[in-house]
Amino acid sequence: MASYNLLLLPGDGIGPEVMAEVERVIRWLDANSGVHFETETDLVGGSAYDVHGVAITDETMKTAMAADAVIFGAVGGPKWDAVPYEVRPEAGLLRLRKDLELFANLRPAICYPALADASSLKREVVEGLDILILRELTGGVYFGEPKEIVTLENGEKRAVDTQVYTTHEIERIARVAFELARARRNKVTSMEKRNVMRSGVLWNQVVTAVHKAEYPDVQLEHMLADAGGMQLVRWPKQFDVIVTDNLFGDMLSDVAAMLTGSLGMLPSASLGAPDPATGKRKALYEPVHGSAPDIAGKGIANPIAMIASLGMALRYSFDMGEAADLVDGAIADVLASGTRTADLAAKGQNSVSTREMGEAIVKAM
Amino acid sequence: MASYNLLLLPGDGIGPEVMAEVERVIRWLDANSGVHFETETDLVGGSAYDVHGVAITDETMKTAMAADAVIFGAVGGPKWDAVPYEVRPEAGLLRLRKDLELFANLRPAICYPALADASSLKREVVEGLDILILRELTGGVYFGEPKEIVTLENGEKRAVDTQVYTTHEIERIARVAFELARARRNKVTSMEKRNVMRSGVLWNQVVTAVHKAEYPDVQLEHMLADAGGMQLVRWPKQFDVIVTDNLFGDMLSDVAAMLTGSLGMLPSASLGAPDPATGKRKALYEPVHGSAPDIAGKGIANPIAMIASLGMALRYSFDMGEAADLVDGAIADVLASGTRTADLAAKGQNSVSTREMGEAIVKAM
Ligand SMILES: CC(C)[C@H](C(=O)O)[C@@H](O)C(=O)O
Ligand SMILES: CC(C)[C@H](C(=O)O)[C@@H](O)C(=O)O
Repeated sequence: MASYNLLLLPGDGIGPEVMAEVERVIRWLDANSGVHFETETDLVGGSAYDVHGVAITDETMKTAMAADAVIFGAVGGPKWDAVPYEVRPEAGLLRLRKDLELFANLRPAICYPALADASSLKREVVEGLDILILRELTGGVYFGEPKEIVTLENGEKRAVDTQVYTTHEIERIARVAFELARARRNKVTSMEKRNVMRSGVLWNQVVTAVHKAEYPDVQLEHMLADAGGMQLVRWPKQFDVIVTDNLFGDMLSDVAAMLTGSLGMLPSASLGAPDPATGKRKALYEPVHGSAPDIAGKGIANPIAMIASLGMALRYSFDMGEAADLVDGAIADVLASGTRTADLAAKGQNSVSTREMGEAIVKAM
Repeated sequence: MASYNLLLLPGDGIGPEVMAEVERVIRWLDANSGVHFETETDLVGGSAYDVHGVAITDETMKTAMAADAVIFGAVGGPKWDAVPYEVRPEAGLLRLRKDLELFANLRPAICYPALADASSLKREVVEGLDILILRELTGGVYFGEPKEIVTLENGEKRAVDTQVYTTHEIERIARVAFELARARRNKVTSMEKRNVMRSGVLWNQVVTAVHKAEYPDVQLEHMLADAGGMQLVRWPKQFDVIVTDNLFGDMLSDVAAMLTGSLGMLPSASLGAPDPATGKRKALYEPVHGSAPDIAGKGIANPIAMIASLGMALRYSFDMGEAADLVDGAIADVLASGTRTADLAAKGQNSVSTREMGEAIVKAM
């Protein structure tokens, strides 16, 4: 029987609550899928800082390196607003992304039919929406050096962040974009600000060259990132795969997630390059939503994005497409039957707890 | 009689067409407002490049420096996609902003009642929307050095852009934000990515300090820029003044403009610091929309954003609040009467030309 190691990192805020429902799904899979999952749970973010004084320990990093996949909750919260920059909760997530070389971040933005009316956009604009934002995740302004605050002679401070991209970083994310598009509607939109940024100029050139040399069958279009943000709001269905850099990807994927009315529902996958020897990719799966400290501990958080993230792990890390379909189908069924957590419930509608939602999904499976 | 010098820079694409309607309004003001406007028209962007080989000449810059205000159309288009980076159309606009030190960019996002249904957002989300995005315009990744593409020893290229902010740059834009808020609904939301960027950390600290020391009466809230993009789409009416850096401001103001369904309608003002001797500010006024090369030359572009930009000039540069109200009122009246350019017309509805819209607005004045 196949057996896989999962590292569970619930993190802060609602992370532990929604992770508990993922564990419920894992137990079900363990009993019913013919595949065994070995899980280990560890600290990350503010909860790691509280115990160890860092946002992730070297030991946890070692476990993450060895795991078949990392399932990540969420980090951060006002409690840690004043901790030093180097050990702030987000540093744990950024170290995981960087050290595991998870350069490809897949953020699907889909609109569940049952929820089309929950969007602030008109139903016809978002109904049936199914786009994929592919965000470069280990480069750009997130990691470029210098990155510092210095005090000048006149007493003023000067803060610097550096956006850096090299040819091969852009090539490898472009290839992922074209491969993904081939399995979808065969269209890639590349977004940058080449009219202002040198990194945008290089991004545009490299994506164009990869397209010409390797993927001429895929439709490629270029859009300035600011215009892209507009077009996402105006008519998001014009897109299939959007490929963009780390910072634009952060902004644009959040806007896209909000369009769907399904923010508490959207999973993401962060993938490394396949190992040349084994073909395996390092991978981390996390919900697009954050740690939501305002509702943490109340048992009312929506666990769907977290469970759907496990679904993505089944699909991308374990080649368990059928089990992934089962998870996705169970989520859709539960929603169609009217079961809603508080974030999804219309005014006056009944809502269920985090746990009840998890149980309903497992039951539907 | 008061007399002012205006430098008109129509630029590329639809720029000249919409500027012609501004000239119509200027002629009316000249005849009826008791103030004389001396205008000079010059080249910028691709049209300057075609004639002079640069996106703006030193002579034009001199005129701009001496003008009481610059009225700017739009620049860029596919025709100039292959020109060298230093002389691309946008370089003309960026030089104007930088050399005139126009650090404060005011981008109101208002939803004209007559157009609430033109938005892709639900009517109740945008109806009555009136927020102001204040974008820092002379710092950040737009101008920081190094900004270059270098070829590495292995033949790869490496592109670098540098985000830089100093204390005083943040202080002066924060002050403008708080002053503007005092004349509105008294609330400022500051947006950055302090969880990832050092410039975000400094931005947050300086805005907080200016607030505490000088504007404790104004409500201040901080939001991560990605969450801010989400909140703009979810419930934009929660905001009053949003203050943010150059690049986030570029993205967020485009999203905000699209929310209103009034993209062809939104003006902007870019202001410098008041001259210590005369109290005068250097200023440039431009529509938020771009050069729209696809419809250029057809006489169908919407001139409202351009005319409203002149309205902002009357208000912010010439202390002609009444004349500005007259312009804004005429625009609202013409819209309420059902007159629409093609971009605003519902399917099957009649539409008027650029010129007819300009004439209707002057008539309503
Ligand atoms: C938590 C934070 C560091 C992170 C980011 O900026 O990448 C988050 O916003 C995301 O999008 O995953
Ligand atoms: C034309 C371009 C350089 C400009 C910018 O990026 O600032 C535009 O997008 C804007 O928002 O004014």
